[in-house]
Amino acid sequence: MHTPSEAHSSAQPSAESEAAFLQQLREALPASALSTDPEDLRSRSVDLGPSEHLTPEQPAVVVRPQSVEQVQHAVRIAAAHGRAVVTRGAGTGLAGGANAVAGCLVLETTQMNRILRVSAEDSTATVEPGVIVADLDAAAAEHHLMYAPDPASWRISTIGGNIATNAGGLRCAKYGVTRDSVLSLDVVLADGSLLHTRSATFKHVVGYDLTSLMVGSEGTLGIVVGATVRLRHRSQKVETIGAFFPQLSTAASGVVEMSRVGVQPAITELLDAATMRALDEAHGSDLARRGEALLLVQTDGHGAEVEAELVREALRDLGAEVTEPGSAEADELVELRRHARGDGLVDEIRVGEDIAVPRSQLVTCIEKMHQVARAHRVELKVVAHAGDGNLHPTFSVRTSGDEELQEVTARLDAALDDSVRVALELGGTISGEHGVGGYKLRWMDWEQSSGLIALQRRIKEAFDPQHLLNPHRGIL
Amino acid sequence: MHTPSEAHSSAQPSAESEAAFLQQLREALPASALSTDPEDLRSRSVDLGPSEHLTPEQPAVVVRPQSVEQVQHAVRIAAAHGRAVVTRGAGTGLAGGANAVAGCLVLETTQMNRILRVSAEDSTATVEPGVIVADLDAAAAEHHLMYAPDPASWRISTIGGNIATNAGGLRCAKYGVTRDSVLSLDVVLADGSLLHTRSATFKHVVGYDLTSLMVGSEGTLGIVVGATVRLRHRSQKVETIGAFFPQLSTAASGVVEMSRVGVQPAITELLDAATMRALDEAHGSDLARRGEALLLVQTDGHGAEVEAELVREALRDLGAEVTEPGSAEADELVELRRHARGDGLVDEIRVGEDIAVPRSQLVTCIEKMHQVARAHRVELKVVAHAGDGNLHPTFSVRTSGDEELQEVTARLDAALDDSVRVALELGGTISGEHGVGGYKLRWMDWEQSSGLIALQRRIKEAFDPQHLLNPHRGIL
Repeated sequence: MHTPSEAHSSAQPSAESEAAFLQQLREALPASALSTDPEDLRSRSVDLGPSEHLTPEQPAVVVRPQSVEQVQHAVRIAAAHGRAVVTRGAGTGLAGGANAVAGCLVLETTQMNRILRVSAEDSTATVEPGVIVADLDAAAAEHHLMYAPDPASWRISTIGGNIATNAGGLRCAKYGVTRDSVLSLDVVLADGSLLHTRSATFKHVVGYDLTSLMVGSEGTLGIVVGATVRLRHRSQKVETIGAFFPQLSTAASGVVEMSRVGVQPAITELLDAATMRALDEAHGSDLARRGEALLLVQTDGHGAEVEAELVREALRDLGAEVTEPGSAEADELVELRRHARGDGLVDEIRVGEDIAVPRSQLVTCIEKMHQVARAHRVELKVVAHAGDGNLHPTFSVRTSGDEELQEVTARLDAALDDSVRVALELGGTISGEHGVGGYKLRWMDWEQSSGLIALQRRIKEAFDPQHLLNPHRGIL
Repeated sequence: MHTPSEAHSSAQPSAESEAAFLQQLREALPASALSTDPEDLRSRSVDLGPSEHLTPEQPAVVVRPQSVEQVQHAVRIAAAHGRAVVTRGAGTGLAGGANAVAGCLVLETTQMNRILRVSAEDSTATVEPGVIVADLDAAAAEHHLMYAPDPASWRISTIGGNIATNAGGLRCAKYGVTRDSVLSLDVVLADGSLLHTRSATFKHVVGYDLTSLMVGSEGTLGIVVGATVRLRHRSQKVETIGAFFPQLSTAASGVVEMSRVGVQPAITELLDAATMRALDEAHGSDLARRGEALLLVQTDGHGAEVEAELVREALRDLGAEVTEPGSAEADELVELRRHARGDGLVDEIRVGEDIAVPRSQLVTCIEKMHQVARAHRVELKVVAHAGDGNLHPTFSVRTSGDEELQEVTARLDAALDDSVRVALELGGTISGEHGVGGYKLRWMDWEQSSGLIALQRRIKEAFDPQHLLNPHRGIL
């Protein structure tokens, strides 16, 4: 799969060359920007995803640059020494995209965390890559604006990481994913040169759209060192609706029905019975008693109230028990939902997925996921950004100690494989919003043709002929 | 600038090789798909843009394929004979991007014009490239949906051409440009192979975003032979507001003011006094009497009326004369606006531009355009998609016969050059929505760094090593 020219697959460097590499970094960068502390190195070998999917590999050094120039120095020195550069934000990814590869330089952007400018007049913000997404949104809020993309990690993840993975979130169905909010990027390329992709105008058609190409490229094409993003109106009015359905399939129909009555909700989240039971167990709520599926809907903008009423009517007509206007419960449910995947039990082993299908295939997809779970004797819970057809099934096994860990892991892995097959059969994708990273490479050629994979490798070569940047990540 | 490997820059082919090329096409394609009729050839050497900017070049043959396979045959035969392939839709572009190059094969997609599927449930449509944009929108309307991008040419231009140029339009500020509506593409590459870029899900982060890379690449990376696009709700309510301002600068402030009161209009068009005078002259209206600038605003969605009232209040506070709710005049003004650039006088020579600047620079930009016009003794009128900061200045000279055509053209060209400099100085771009084509190549390295240009050439090589596809177009 990989060419011999790839930086980190060359023979183990000698202690001498290792010392020379580190010495050159020390000469070029301030001491505060460098670490070879064993704990610092170890912690960069994993992210928030399940660590059993990739064997942890130890970097040679962690660099936390404080300026674009320092990024350029670090990249040039790594290139000269044939060392891979793995760019990392807060490490909150779930796909292993920022996990170190052996002997690499981890370039962590967390110290470049200034919001350089918020322009209310232009509805834009210019930021360094290490800015926390929630901080960017808070800065926008001072001008009655918002930064729309809101992945579950938004309070801890960086904008650079969000750009690298084209992060999604709850509000995507109405406001788009990260790519739809990025106007222009400053990028350090594999040769250390600095590239400004385009003007920060709303419209731009000059040459190829390198901005969009960079977004979601998972650090394999260049290092994002600056971004100008588009901000949107911050709605003064938000209406939240919770709707409990006797059947999951009817809840899914509700998604299409809202579209039919002409409403584009800001948020449309679907929780299945197992997810409700898990939330009940963790928070003492009584959701599961009230239905087999829960649909959470938010409308916003100047038509928020009218839209909410249309939604309540449409969902009641489908047989749902719908929260009353102004009820605090619905808002609390959305907050619970933001944590729905994290609420696992201590005695369970679980693996999560991030598939997406055309919206019309939502019900079929969930039904088939349950068949998959039964076939492999694992538990399943599903939450979905239903407006986008983006599902997060979580397969789990409660460990009793009687079973071998290896056997359990094998069953969970087989369930994951089958769930990915289901998504692809239904015209879907192996990743809706988390990216491929390292964990999902094994499914990449299930989704993509050999021609598509070959073309992407040629593009990679056009950017990074030495394969220095995030090798073995993002593409095959 | 260009490598010797480029197909059409090789020596003039012999009559013998010309005959062999055409013979092979005749064997592979139905007679109805081929033309060497001189008038057919001549008409493909120009588009709707000003023909004096590029010397017309004659193609060898016009191919109008009826299937993907026929496109593949044509491309393979052209490649075998080292002939350039210029892909063309309806030829309604304004930048010369689909003008034939000498001896090329013009691949015209107008016969592949089927709407293959409209899915109300998925809010998507799957189309062939030759579908007229207004027909796609009409098909969506049957399901209470819309295809949002609406370039002025939408009644005559093809979706394939819109994708090639990433066409904009009036509704972009709210609904995005063509790129924001394209989910997946089928593309024939320079070697004749067929590529499917991605699943047609709303969310997708697997590998590089080749779909976005193709959109706006002006036929230089591949030939779009199919597309699945996203449809949006078709608003039942649309409110239109016309606001006449005593000063242009106050009208531009109105754009920012609407944003401040939390309204994102579907349409925000700005017309200057000269444009109003031209419309009055052509249509017998009395716009120019009523102010120095006209702002046309449409709000839509369930909040349309509330938003319209907020807009009217905000614009009145700035001193505008605002049309009353429900007035038919405002809607008529929008229709007039859609034709505003085309309403030239027979005795004038004119050239138009398509620059875009950050929204906050709109007033400064227009003021500087007037300085440019005065300096070069040419007339200026300006219309702008003001919500996007996308301006269409038109410079013109009424010909009296006393002046040499060449001298007039030189003055107009100098004004264009200076207007482009103004846009770039204000952080803008040489093209907001028409593309670079052939006409704007001369400004490309004014906007883009040598590193950016070199990187794009490497990407071009990754797709099309022989430089067969639309050579001398889109990128340097």
